Amino acid sequence: MSLQTDPQGRLRHLLALEGLPRATLEHLLDRAQALAGHAHGGSAMRGVLAGKAVCTLFFEPSTRTRSSFQLAAARLGADTLNFDASTSSAKKGETDADTLRTIEAMGVHGFVVRHPDDGAVDALARVARPGTVLVNAGDGRHAHPTQGLLDMLTLRQAKGADFSRLKVLIVGDVKHSRVARSDLHALRTLGCGEIRICGPWSLLPGPAVLAGCTVTTDFDAALDGVDAVMMLRLQRERMESGLVSSLQDYHRDYGLTVARLRQAAPDAVVMHPGPMNRGVEIADDVADGPQSLVLRQVANGVAVRMAVLEALLG
Amino acid sequence: MSLQTDPQGRLRHLLALEGLPRATLEHLLDRAQALAGHAHGGSAMRGVLAGKAVCTLFFEPSTRTRSSFQLAAARLGADTLNFDASTSSAKKGETDADTLRTIEAMGVHGFVVRHPDDGAVDALARVARPGTVLVNAGDGRHAHPTQGLLDMLTLRQAKGADFSRLKVLIVGDVKHSRVARSDLHALRTLGCGEIRICGPWSLLPGPAVLAGCTVTTDFDAALDGVDAVMMLRLQRERMESGLVSSLQDYHRDYGLTVARLRQAAPDAVVMHPGPMNRGVEIADDVADGPQSLVLRQVANGVAVRMAVLEALLG
Amino acid sequence: MSLQTDPQGRLRHLLALEGLPRATLEHLLDRAQALAGHAHGGSAMRGVLAGKAVCTLFFEPSTRTRSSFQLAAARLGADTLNFDASTSSAKKGETDADTLRTIEAMGVHGFVVRHPDDGAVDALARVARPGTVLVNAGDGRHAHPTQGLLDMLTLRQAKGADFSRLKVLIVGDVKHSRVARSDLHALRTLGCGEIRICGPWSLLPGPAVLAGCTVTTDFDAALDGVDAVMMLRLQRERMESGLVSSLQDYHRDYGLTVARLRQAAPDAVVMHPGPMNRGVEIADDVADGPQSLVLRQVANGVAVRMAVLEALLG
Repeated sequence: MSLQTDPQGRLRHLLALEGLPRATLEHLLDRAQALAGHAHGGSAMRGVLAGKAVCTLFFEPSTRTRSSFQLAAARLGADTLNFDASTSSAKKGETDADTLRTIEAMGVHGFVVRHPDDGAVDALARVARPGTVLVNAGDGRHAHPTQGLLDMLTLRQAKGADFSRLKVLIVGDVKHSRVARSDLHALRTLGCGEIRICGPWSLLPGPAVLAGCTVTTDFDAALDGVDAVMMLRLQRERMESGLVSSLQDYHRDYGLTVARLRQAAPDAVVMHPGPMNRGVEIADDVADGPQSLVLRQVANGVAVRMAVLEALLG
Repeated sequence: MSLQTDPQGRLRHLLALEGLPRATLEHLLDRAQALAGHAHGGSAMRGVLAGKAVCTLFFEPSTRTRSSFQLAAARLGADTLNFDASTSSAKKGETDADTLRTIEAMGVHGFVVRHPDDGAVDALARVARPGTVLVNAGDGRHAHPTQGLLDMLTLRQAKGADFSRLKVLIVGDVKHSRVARSDLHALRTLGCGEIRICGPWSLLPGPAVLAGCTVTTDFDAALDGVDAVMMLRLQRERMESGLVSSLQDYHRDYGLTVARLRQAAPDAVVMHPGPMNRGVEIADDVADGPQSLVLRQVANGVAVRMAVLEALLG
Repeated sequence: MSLQTDPQGRLRHLLALEGLPRATLEHLLDRAQALAGHAHGGSAMRGVLAGKAVCTLFFEPSTRTRSSFQLAAARLGADTLNFDASTSSAKKGETDADTLRTIEAMGVHGFVVRHPDDGAVDALARVARPGTVLVNAGDGRHAHPTQGLLDMLTLRQAKGADFSRLKVLIVGDVKHSRVARSDLHALRTLGCGEIRICGPWSLLPGPAVLAGCTVTTDFDAALDGVDAVMMLRLQRERMESGLVSSLQDYHRDYGLTVARLRQAAPDAVVMHPGPMNRGVEIADDVADGPQSLVLRQVANGVAVRMAVLEALLG
């Protein structure tokens, strides 16, 4: 992890939660918790990044994640530059590294990068100038560390800081999910008592990803007594590529309904990274029900991204 | 109108001009008039929305209207977030309500919403959190209240505050026009002396919309002695769907030329919401002539939007 | 040049470097040099354009140039409005002049305009209101004055202010290049000792453009003893239209390699306006080598644009 931390163990970039020391992860969560109260306005934090520029450099479009980072940066007083590198006009055959170096040369020190390819943000961090800071906003199926952090913050607010007593279930397309990978690393680092994984075989990853998890294709069995259910979005492309037979079948087998949720602990919480496919992986009355923390996750996302930008650039 | 105003009659959202009390409407116009002097720069108003975020949430693209709101918000010191919900990547099957709630959860309290469907902004106002404020920036053919307000401000500057002596003519595709509907409600509320409506039968709406108006398909007759001519944009889709035979025919019958304008009162003013189809609904020498208030309308648009954002969020 | 300067010789717009007095050009370079130290952050310059709005009005997409101007404007404290006039939804048949006038009417005084057509920015300057300021960010193959200025600043930093001793070579698709035209005007104005032009006949412009230059199709001969090599980007469209047989052939004949560069003066510098086609007009080890000033050009671009905006709007 020398790419992500300096020799003194300080964070230089946020590329992945894998290998991030527990103290670093918990410090970011503590800071995000403190910032959550400031996240919705006010000018107290405007000086933190005043005069600095943060570029959202997206090689794959994502309006939601970009907006969350943009608001976080604005609340810290940064100038934000949205650079859409996914359109052909922006790229014109330029390498990703040249795109990064060009914006660096314009005097931008902070980059929030989304990329369709696994490891692409690490590769950019390797060619960045000293002093340039990268935050991975999702690369391929590899990592989405700020999503992992905001999920942990949300869990901690609901269930307390001692994760050793928690049973957490992750459901759905774990195979293609950078969210699941980042959540798994964070849950392990925080000492989660039991991690269960559930989905159809066609959407489960190999054993390396699942190390230490209880794995099943039976959603009802998996739900038994869990404290938190983390639902994943089903990309419609999975149907087109034949990994899932139909949305109806998927909902029948892996859709979270109120009836199913009764098998979890009575105070179990439900999470989803959004955007939700209502009626597919999650039923309306669960999404909008009292156990849903979906909007709390979104709110925590801004606080977590403020904490990360502050730690790296402040 | 309980959706739009609170029990004390204060404005909570701006969804439509229909039903808005005359005092509220005139107060907004007075405030916009006062702000018009500040609208083009300076920092006097920067504190009004400092630290607050305004999201332009557009389910249908519109660069002009978005820019006008964006400048208005910036001049009040707000952070602005442009969220383009019209591209498939942004939506990914998410419901409109979930999109709104997600950005709300990020700590955004002000929304400027454009939508292709009638009533869609009202529907979003119904699911918004208490404290969230929505401004309708145009929904289907239903309403475009800030356009109505800026048209009234422009008329008032030109003709004085007493509308009872005014004869106002609205010309063109009234059937599909949210601008015309908002203008009609505002003109009635302000006690306009006579409202005339003119256009081909195929582009005139039903009697409910036209209540109290003098309706004709004869443009020359309609122009006689009017104090203001409000031209509407002819969407090119009307040709494709057969409602208009050709641009040439439309111009011959319903295009405003200098010769035709002579039938109006000598000091009649000409308005158009833009963008103009020169040579179709309006001739160059009218668009650029001394009676045209087209650019004054645009300038007033920023002032009106500042007044609305200040009233709702300040 | 009365369009560009007022009767007192002060700059009103920046439309082209052609005809710009040497004193004006050098003053802009001096100011950009002074600003270069401030260009990467800090708040010292934030008051220069505080409360003013700068619109990037792009009739042709260009993320890099737009970003450079956007950062320059932000560092001077301006509000920036990005208006993408290249999408059909933005235009809706509106004339370019009406688009400009509409944004002017919103209270925007500064415009950074890119356009696919030669002379289009001059045409807009002719219809702009007094007090409105236009910066040409590239129009057709006509001019790209801020690129010319940043190239001169970069050359001056490397080689000193006395251009009379310099041999400068411009290589590639000069015919279609607004960058080359602006560089040529600036080099002549600054009294460059020798200007050489090299490229295949199919990509060389007519004699009017090349006045005073040494012209050759032999790259190796052209390189002999030059102090600076300015490479131009090869647009892939040139292949499709048959002006270039293949990328491989082009690289063999006109690609700058380390071996070729040895024919230039030992301390020769290499420049490229970006984005680079690595392996086509420039080899990796030249692009990333010690003689390359490519990223310095990008950095200088922000400083030059700050100087231009300050001179016109400050």
